[in-house]
Amino acid sequence: MDPVREQLANNLRRQRHKAGLSQERLAELCELHRTAIGLLERGKRSPRLETLVVLSRAMELSSPCELLEGIS
Amino acid sequence: MDPVREQLANNLRRQRHKAGLSQERLAELCELHRTAIGLLERGKRSPRLETLVVLSRAMELSSPCELLEGIS
Repeated sequence: MDPVREQLANNLRRQRHKAGLSQERLAELCELHRTAIGLLERGKRSPRLETLVVLSRAMELSSPCELLEGIS
Repeated sequence: MDPVREQLANNLRRQRHKAGLSQERLAELCELHRTAIGLLERGKRSPRLETLVVLSRAMELSSPCELLEGIS
């Protein structure tokens, strides 16, 4: 798997668990297709900036940067 | 303009100037189309995570988060 997508996948899964949300519920909150979170968490897709922002807001992170931890 | 794209546009322009690169040269370093940087700096496009990462590497930022400053 591409290392950038893999790190994003790990960060997203960790933050989603921390927020106590299922993949389906998070997708719903973000108005994304119900399979979108699964694709991201399996590193199958590279999200656009807008998607990083809606994910971050739905999980009440302080910044979308929290989803980029470990990516350089 | 969408406020997220606007902030990204401002951050990108600032960091590109700091790196002393033209839009064309940055595009070349990133293997992006020569118009791509202009589109991002006018807030016309929302980049994918991979693009944020290649931009950040080309400008030798410590992390793509530096392009997300002020976005929450």
